[in-house]
Amino acid sequence: MERIFSVPLKGGTVTDVYMLDTMGELADVLSEQGSSILISDENASRLLPSIPGGAVIIPPGEKEKSWESVEKMLEGAASLSLARDSVFVGFGGGVVLDLAAFASSVYMRGARLVLVPTTLLSMVDATLGGKTGFDYLGIKNLVGTFYPAESVLIVPETLRTLPDSEFRSGLGEVVKHALLSEDARLWEFLESSHDLIIARDRDALSEMIRLSLEVKIWYITRDPEEKKGIRSALNLGHTFGHALESMNGFSISHGEGVAWGMHKALAAGLALGLTPDDFAARALSLLRLYGFNGDHMIPDGRFPAFMKAIRSDKKKSGGSVKFVLMEGQGKPVLTALDDNAVKAAVKGFN
Amino acid sequence: MERIFSVPLKGGTVTDVYMLDTMGELADVLSEQGSSILISDENASRLLPSIPGGAVIIPPGEKEKSWESVEKMLEGAASLSLARDSVFVGFGGGVVLDLAAFASSVYMRGARLVLVPTTLLSMVDATLGGKTGFDYLGIKNLVGTFYPAESVLIVPETLRTLPDSEFRSGLGEVVKHALLSEDARLWEFLESSHDLIIARDRDALSEMIRLSLEVKIWYITRDPEEKKGIRSALNLGHTFGHALESMNGFSISHGEGVAWGMHKALAAGLALGLTPDDFAARALSLLRLYGFNGDHMIPDGRFPAFMKAIRSDKKKSGGSVKFVLMEGQGKPVLTALDDNAVKAAVKGFN
Repeated sequence: MERIFSVPLKGGTVTDVYMLDTMGELADVLSEQGSSILISDENASRLLPSIPGGAVIIPPGEKEKSWESVEKMLEGAASLSLARDSVFVGFGGGVVLDLAAFASSVYMRGARLVLVPTTLLSMVDATLGGKTGFDYLGIKNLVGTFYPAESVLIVPETLRTLPDSEFRSGLGEVVKHALLSEDARLWEFLESSHDLIIARDRDALSEMIRLSLEVKIWYITRDPEEKKGIRSALNLGHTFGHALESMNGFSISHGEGVAWGMHKALAAGLALGLTPDDFAARALSLLRLYGFNGDHMIPDGRFPAFMKAIRSDKKKSGGSVKFVLMEGQGKPVLTALDDNAVKAAVKGFN
Repeated sequence: MERIFSVPLKGGTVTDVYMLDTMGELADVLSEQGSSILISDENASRLLPSIPGGAVIIPPGEKEKSWESVEKMLEGAASLSLARDSVFVGFGGGVVLDLAAFASSVYMRGARLVLVPTTLLSMVDATLGGKTGFDYLGIKNLVGTFYPAESVLIVPETLRTLPDSEFRSGLGEVVKHALLSEDARLWEFLESSHDLIIARDRDALSEMIRLSLEVKIWYITRDPEEKKGIRSALNLGHTFGHALESMNGFSISHGEGVAWGMHKALAAGLALGLTPDDFAARALSLLRLYGFNGDHMIPDGRFPAFMKAIRSDKKKSGGSVKFVLMEGQGKPVLTALDDNAVKAAVKGFN
């Protein structure tokens, strides 16, 4: 078990990120925890050699991201007589981790939290920075807290059995990190190691995850509570992408939505003269290399519904929705767009 | 509106405490908030000259301290399309304030929070330090967060119509703060101004609240997340008191329970030779001055039930329950007690 990052967060807390070689090593680490509860879903829990008594295993899927699931976890913890110094271990993808983290954050006003992401998306996106939550009244993550895990344990081996669509979803976020990074290492690695990554070579995945996390950490440590606008850069592709996801009843994956949203953000930036041509061309080329082509044009008749979805995005503040556009690699900028600019971006460019 | 304290808390946040002369002044201040939701109960809301649209008014009482009440608040906020920079205004006693603070802490991962305590107990106890929560699975405050308000607005005028039993409940906490204070001002003020306080003279209440808050602030700023054991001193009287409250189905008030618990903590400390005789005598005299006599002996037959209630106290950590005993004024000490010591304290001394 190698500690690859120690991330300083709000209030002096720290999240340590570890890379583990095998599931056996993970089992050893988890068994050394004291009093704890394991939280997983029916898919992810199959990766575990055994499931301890008192574990809470929920069905898979975004629709489980509800108060009812949180209740199961709180009841599980109470039935094990867990105290505040007990550990909630979340094992799975983003839904499980967000729920386990939320439950941990409110159990006795905050128990200990260890997260074990088992999808590429959750390894590079969901586990750092402390965002927890569940969907409520039909709004994604309407209820949540900021509650960083004390440690995140990454076992790239778990990615070998991940369905292709979920693997691609994670790659969308990795490409986003490449665009947002001030240095060229992740971008160049994605170009030079494409075949190894797609073949899910363990060493290549391990390196890609490290480089991707480094970018996320750069942003969140400068704005741990998302109050300064810096961390908002991580929403690149998300405002466009979330709206598309919600219009499609969340039938396309998060990473696909984000990749589509990056296309649209590049289009909007080009139209405003804000995004340089050569940067946009390189970014589009990287997106295409990983199979993200920016399809799903929004026809005129659906545009009002699309704008409604855009406006309901929870990242609005004081009534105006800000989009992350790019002035170049590692140079995000928050910009309001009028409806015509949005329309041009989502119609005319793919 | 006078700012009487600016309390530094975890992660660089600050809670500003203001004293206001009249309800009219409060109404002006609240109307100057931007986008906001008022949260109150049917009793407290009668103090308001008018109730804005979209307010959430719950029935009074501890049994409302539930997820269902939190849901009403979240739904109210969502129906007003509140964003993260909107304000949740809690107006009422401890139940309303704990709920409003919890709802605010989880709405979009944390909205702004202003608390207006309208009971003596909530003015001196519940509004500072950021404890939020509700009861779950029959356990008090099993679910909660740490989420300090950005401001607390105190209008001593609201105490003039507070029922006597609730006023007494607050006095129990005030006496506790006198015992825990390293200096003599609060204790002396309680002795010298007893008649004015009981008559609810506005200036006397105002001074008593300031001095009492000063003690609470001293403790919580040294241990904002209750992890160092310092803040645990504020639990003086609470372990004994909570157990009595729960045995009586919460038919006695919190402050009465705490005052009874202080008697028992003094008895236990005397029996161990840890609490000096003269300090105990002075403390008992102050308790008696305010009508707290330490009745409710626990008969032998009920002792097992009492011990069970003690052990279920959520402040246990790693299985052992720690009691706050006193080595002198301002000198609390956390001590485990064996069953016989507890039994002697709750039987033999009142």
